[in-house]
Amino acid sequence: MFPISALSIAIRRRFLSKSISLYKLFSTQSPSIQYPLSHPIYMIWGANTGVGKTLVSAGLAASALSPLSLSSKFIYLKPVQTGFPEDSDSDFVYRKYSEIFHHRRPQFTVFASNHALKASISASQAVLGVDTEEIGKSESGFRDLGWYEERKLQGEGGETVEIASELICKMIYGWKEAVSPHLAAERERAVVDDSDLLGMVKQSLGIGCEDGHNVGVFSVLETAGGVASPGPSGSLQCDLYRPFRLPAILVGDGRLGGISSTISAYESLKLRGYDVVAVVCEDHGLVNEVPLLSYLRNRVPVLVLPPIPQDMSDKLMEWFDEAQCAFSSLKEIMISDFIERTERLRDMPKKARDIIWWPFTQHKLVPEETVTVIDSRCGEHFAVHKVLNHDFIMQQFDACASWWTQGPDHTLQIELARDMGYAAARFGHVMFPENIHEPALECAELLLGGVGKGWASRVFFSDNGSTSIEIALKMAFRKFLFDNGILLGLPKADTTERCIDLKVLALRGSYHGDTLGAMEAQAPSSYTGYLQQPWYTGRGLFLDPPTVFMHNGVWKLSLPERMHPEKVNVEDTSFGLRDELFNKSRDGSSLAGCYSLYILKELSLHSGLRGFSHIGALIIEPVIQGSGGMLMVDPLFQRVLVKECQSRKIPVIFDEVFTGFWRLGVESAAELLCCQPDIACFAKLMTGGIVPLAATLATGPVFDAFVGDSKLQALLHGHSYTAHAMGCTAAAKSIKWFKDTKTNFNLIFEGRLLGELWDMDLVTQISFHHTVHRVVALGTLCALELRAEGHNAGYASLYARSLLQNLREDGIYTRPLGNVIYLMCGPCTSPQTCRQLLEILYKRLEEFGQANQV
Amino acid sequence: MFPISALSIAIRRRFLSKSISLYKLFSTQSPSIQYPLSHPIYMIWGANTGVGKTLVSAGLAASALSPLSLSSKFIYLKPVQTGFPEDSDSDFVYRKYSEIFHHRRPQFTVFASNHALKASISASQAVLGVDTEEIGKSESGFRDLGWYEERKLQGEGGETVEIASELICKMIYGWKEAVSPHLAAERERAVVDDSDLLGMVKQSLGIGCEDGHNVGVFSVLETAGGVASPGPSGSLQCDLYRPFRLPAILVGDGRLGGISSTISAYESLKLRGYDVVAVVCEDHGLVNEVPLLSYLRNRVPVLVLPPIPQDMSDKLMEWFDEAQCAFSSLKEIMISDFIERTERLRDMPKKARDIIWWPFTQHKLVPEETVTVIDSRCGEHFAVHKVLNHDFIMQQFDACASWWTQGPDHTLQIELARDMGYAAARFGHVMFPENIHEPALECAELLLGGVGKGWASRVFFSDNGSTSIEIALKMAFRKFLFDNGILLGLPKADTTERCIDLKVLALRGSYHGDTLGAMEAQAPSSYTGYLQQPWYTGRGLFLDPPTVFMHNGVWKLSLPERMHPEKVNVEDTSFGLRDELFNKSRDGSSLAGCYSLYILKELSLHSGLRGFSHIGALIIEPVIQGSGGMLMVDPLFQRVLVKECQSRKIPVIFDEVFTGFWRLGVESAAELLCCQPDIACFAKLMTGGIVPLAATLATGPVFDAFVGDSKLQALLHGHSYTAHAMGCTAAAKSIKWFKDTKTNFNLIFEGRLLGELWDMDLVTQISFHHTVHRVVALGTLCALELRAEGHNAGYASLYARSLLQNLREDGIYTRPLGNVIYLMCGPCTSPQTCRQLLEILYKRLEEFGQANQV
Repeated sequence: MFPISALSIAIRRRFLSKSISLYKLFSTQSPSIQYPLSHPIYMIWGANTGVGKTLVSAGLAASALSPLSLSSKFIYLKPVQTGFPEDSDSDFVYRKYSEIFHHRRPQFTVFASNHALKASISASQAVLGVDTEEIGKSESGFRDLGWYEERKLQGEGGETVEIASELICKMIYGWKEAVSPHLAAERERAVVDDSDLLGMVKQSLGIGCEDGHNVGVFSVLETAGGVASPGPSGSLQCDLYRPFRLPAILVGDGRLGGISSTISAYESLKLRGYDVVAVVCEDHGLVNEVPLLSYLRNRVPVLVLPPIPQDMSDKLMEWFDEAQCAFSSLKEIMISDFIERTERLRDMPKKARDIIWWPFTQHKLVPEETVTVIDSRCGEHFAVHKVLNHDFIMQQFDACASWWTQGPDHTLQIELARDMGYAAARFGHVMFPENIHEPALECAELLLGGVGKGWASRVFFSDNGSTSIEIALKMAFRKFLFDNGILLGLPKADTTERCIDLKVLALRGSYHGDTLGAMEAQAPSSYTGYLQQPWYTGRGLFLDPPTVFMHNGVWKLSLPERMHPEKVNVEDTSFGLRDELFNKSRDGSSLAGCYSLYILKELSLHSGLRGFSHIGALIIEPVIQGSGGMLMVDPLFQRVLVKECQSRKIPVIFDEVFTGFWRLGVESAAELLCCQPDIACFAKLMTGGIVPLAATLATGPVFDAFVGDSKLQALLHGHSYTAHAMGCTAAAKSIKWFKDTKTNFNLIFEGRLLGELWDMDLVTQISFHHTVHRVVALGTLCALELRAEGHNAGYASLYARSLLQNLREDGIYTRPLGNVIYLMCGPCTSPQTCRQLLEILYKRLEEFGQANQV
Repeated sequence: MFPISALSIAIRRRFLSKSISLYKLFSTQSPSIQYPLSHPIYMIWGANTGVGKTLVSAGLAASALSPLSLSSKFIYLKPVQTGFPEDSDSDFVYRKYSEIFHHRRPQFTVFASNHALKASISASQAVLGVDTEEIGKSESGFRDLGWYEERKLQGEGGETVEIASELICKMIYGWKEAVSPHLAAERERAVVDDSDLLGMVKQSLGIGCEDGHNVGVFSVLETAGGVASPGPSGSLQCDLYRPFRLPAILVGDGRLGGISSTISAYESLKLRGYDVVAVVCEDHGLVNEVPLLSYLRNRVPVLVLPPIPQDMSDKLMEWFDEAQCAFSSLKEIMISDFIERTERLRDMPKKARDIIWWPFTQHKLVPEETVTVIDSRCGEHFAVHKVLNHDFIMQQFDACASWWTQGPDHTLQIELARDMGYAAARFGHVMFPENIHEPALECAELLLGGVGKGWASRVFFSDNGSTSIEIALKMAFRKFLFDNGILLGLPKADTTERCIDLKVLALRGSYHGDTLGAMEAQAPSSYTGYLQQPWYTGRGLFLDPPTVFMHNGVWKLSLPERMHPEKVNVEDTSFGLRDELFNKSRDGSSLAGCYSLYILKELSLHSGLRGFSHIGALIIEPVIQGSGGMLMVDPLFQRVLVKECQSRKIPVIFDEVFTGFWRLGVESAAELLCCQPDIACFAKLMTGGIVPLAATLATGPVFDAFVGDSKLQALLHGHSYTAHAMGCTAAAKSIKWFKDTKTNFNLIFEGRLLGELWDMDLVTQISFHHTVHRVVALGTLCALELRAEGHNAGYASLYARSLLQNLREDGIYTRPLGNVIYLMCGPCTSPQTCRQLLEILYKRLEEFGQANQV
């Protein structure tokens, strides 16, 4: 804004090295986002271009570095500047502050500096007055400009230099053309990746914390153009800076039409999860602040600035004087909001411990300091509040995928957020039975064309995995009764007589949900004791399954005792590659015959023992039993089991609540088993992990068993929010996103498979580790069981605690199943990220082994 | 935009009557929104003011009424015009089209007209050149201007007048000052209510359907300013027009900063549930369309218009010629999208019947034509697609409150939508155990300070009513075992031995959810037969409760047989006013003693019969048993029951899934009972009805029964989406909204009570109706049981079908519980609306009585 050529040459100095020696608050090895919460840091956004963002920044600088409340440092950051060097907002703030200082003649001293770090070649030329060849083209299209200028503003009766305040102005990247950054970057061939830009911003945000003495530091980061103006890579700035989620000041538009553009800009910020702390608006005589305040329900303050003089080359001193009061209020609002936020974050662990009742948590084992305050999520990462020397926000990879629900990357999350707003605004929730709405229909179509392809023809919606299982069991039992002519013997449809005792066939170690009906399909376990489940009886025939895992680099098959493993060929129990396990040719092996025999024997034993009870359904988690401890069941065994049941007209239920939607590298884990169920349950990842929704899919014949003349023959089960619009919208979006090669770069094999996400060499290396009993890596899951005995083993074990604590310090949030720990990513997570996770895990396993002297 | 004074006086005519004799497509008695889907109707929105909306409208008119594809009618509506008469967009379109016509010299004839209906007094003066006194001030601040102008545009070799096309331009309201409508309305003292404005728009949208011959009709409705510019009442236009949810064309901004303002405007439209069909942008040489297309993922077309000449008084013919191709594409996009939308809506019932499995629905009883296609929701209303002579969208009041979940009015829905976008963007969903995030903490605090006030100290989140009940039962049983020292007898915490048989005490007719555990707490009913619930045994002692209802204007108490009603004083069983039933003084009545005796007798009978089983919990729906048929239980009885249980250390569970959050006129129905539970369950209305979430609240001592050294003593129950951020955010917002007198105008008695929503005279009148067996009106509920016998009575009855069908035609969507039908509104619904519902219901009951000869 202010012509840099007007600068006094006498005080211009260049420190090319300065740009490299920036203080690094956090390790740069980790690409993760961190920033201090030791002092206020705000982003300044504009409702449009040319609404006066930089004037607000300069006004805030003047207010912060003023006699009334002197800050020790005011830091102004302009990460992206176009029109440089003619336009330089950083220079503008630097100069205007100096002018205000001289104008107001305060009684203190300020060291003011302005720093321009990097500029495109053409912008550099314009600054340095030399041509490209002379400078030498940098590879990235940028030059480390390292342009630095400083001046000492000596007040009247100013204090000594040692305790002077500082104004630090800094431009990070500059381009020459005064157009949108993405255009300038493209035209000047100087594009900067979002991650590089964020890395630079992260470094700059560390300024002010160098010496731990950051009382009175105040930082603002000013964006370019409007909230959704593209940054240099083309990402919209509101998306680009989202990982920091810094609190926002929105400079509104006071002109005609400005109410609308201010509200829309506000909504774009909210739609990215930003907190807008205040709106500032220039007065154009249209009292735009009144409808703005009304829209904001008086909860966000709206401050009015006096009309800005047309001629910006004017010194503006009168304007700044007039606006002084507004800026002072703004600064106070920003400081008090910052203090409130930090205090709230600090108080949350105690408050949570006092009033929350966490699921699956022994509260006595959760001291206040171990409670994690999650401030936000961005893609696969949490932003977590921490306090060490000072408060800060750090990123942690959500490696538990928040109970296996998560899939979205940053982009999908933002799109889902917009879709959630849309679905809520269009539908809220609407009654479902006998009705239809677009999201439900689209979601059902996608389910039948995807995970249900080739077998399912009906979709029944519910709320979570557990309810979808209860529904599946009801479907299966009815189908069984129907097929076996047992219904004919009933006096009437709504009889209450329990004619026969129906049981499920299920596998030990499986888990199908927490409600009683789902629990009854589970073999006795830590979860089913009388203390937990006074009503649990275990209404099943529970078979011990053969399991597989990697150990010392080899995939091994572990057979249950009752199968007499000693009689099985050794070559059938050991595999060099995981994918051999999924080979259909194993159907002809002698092992397949053994499995068949074993199953038949168990079934006949059961019917011999209890002649009055019938197996009315088979239920399995295909391939991996999740809550049971990430146990991989031999897929051959499950295939044989399914076939034996289907040949006996026992309906087969696949519980894909955990395994569905690419969790195991394919959209449906049924593909890995190469067989199809009669009924299947989906939840968790189905909505991308954003909101609860479940679906039970069924074949036509299953549905037909409920069709009749009376309502009492219908499936009388349903939940209030059945097929709620937000859930269905999220599911439709996520299902499409994960299987689209334009959005999911992990897809291979014509989009039918995820490429290997976990580095198999590293996985193998881990399987050799002496602390590790077994490893399973498949799709988005990499699990390992720590070698443990006694109370260190099993679900209630706390053995892994120190390991997990260390991983969290490294920025990996994971949660164990006793002595089983796992890393879980999303279907779109890059293999590079997965590799980093494994590397860190390996390093921490080494330490863990030493500490535990295993 | 075009000075009206330049109009040829020769062809100006005034038809003051014209504004009244507008064709009324739908009955004006109903205030509901309806509009035809017989032809395309679009809204034209602007990313900002001055981006060329009216040029787009004019271009579309020229494209629609062109030789290439001649429409029969092009209708241009401008509901809100400021700066009138100097600016008149309607006149601009009218004149520009005429000019284009003469310029292009087509071979057909067009009747063009321009009509200005109403203007503020000052604007009227300016038009008519007379002063206020002469005209006579209208009460509303408006004059029926009825300014009408028409011309016949005779093409070369034009067709006969009879089959000429028409251009109909219409301004509805005009104000003189060229400022935002809300300002102009205020300053000119001519404010129009949103409902009046919508009524006028609704009338105008009917144009083109007068004769059923609407092939080739094309309508656009142009807004004023930007998408979020205030309308005349101050409501933002995107909110104001939302009830129609017309598909949108967004005129973007091609200038610097225009990418941002276009995206933000788009997001504001999406955040109101609008579908944006195309974006049109003026070319300013900045290729803004590229990032816009990238943002829109190529799914919404972006069309580019040539640079608009600075001088708008120019004839612009060259510009229109240059833009002809873009307008033609735009028109094609709009037509094909319209056709697609209509076809999709028409196909939905069949598709739904083919692949959806509806809950609680006998599919055989749902023919295609009875499937309701819900296109959207706006506050308490559905927008439903219907086909009679032609397709149309009609509004229906959601009188089943979508399975009792709904609470939001239009304003709350929009705010919730923004909050949902924010919560999704900020958090998505994050892992809950041992963690905390702001929405969960705020929600928990609000629950404990509201429905849990005075007794609860812990909040356990889950997904729906059913899961919250299963959790409550587990809590209660543990507490019972703990209190009764039974745990001491257990060998270890995780024993699987079932030492004692725990049962619940519950009331017949109650319903606590569909999962097995919740079902077990229900007495045998239509829902629990073997066919439905093969695993159901009914693990309870189920008491017959005394019920109350209004009949023939009197509240009557009906006692169960086992209480020997013949022995009870008659004066204790009849009440003039409903609220006498809630009177605490009844505690001293002889009836209270009878209740006590009855309960003790049943308890002792039970323990005598089954010495091995213990009553481990009491569970009741306070005051109203919902699914059981909207049965009102005598609150005195429930209070006595609670006391008897608490004195025996039997934990008490209130199932407030249905009754909570103002459903019965108080925040918690426990207030009506004047006693407190140990555990209570909430869901449904808790989130305002937008997304599933449930909470189980408990006292400190209940929580303490789970605290110990082992994880196995903790409550091992949890669902993946526990305390998901969107649910908690919606709940926090709704809980506050419903109890805030600034947002809920129904609150009385210091905000502790809803005023009476149902007109008690009308309710009484209905209770006298010969078709009606009983009525219950309380809070947001008004239920009645139709007098019925045999198969006409009970849950499977189809008796009410014709009545319900008629109500839907009247715009009331309700769903029966067999022969029990009910109207349910939200906590903020106005008593006027409720009165209208009752009036319609009464009228339909009369018909029903005649038809059924009751």
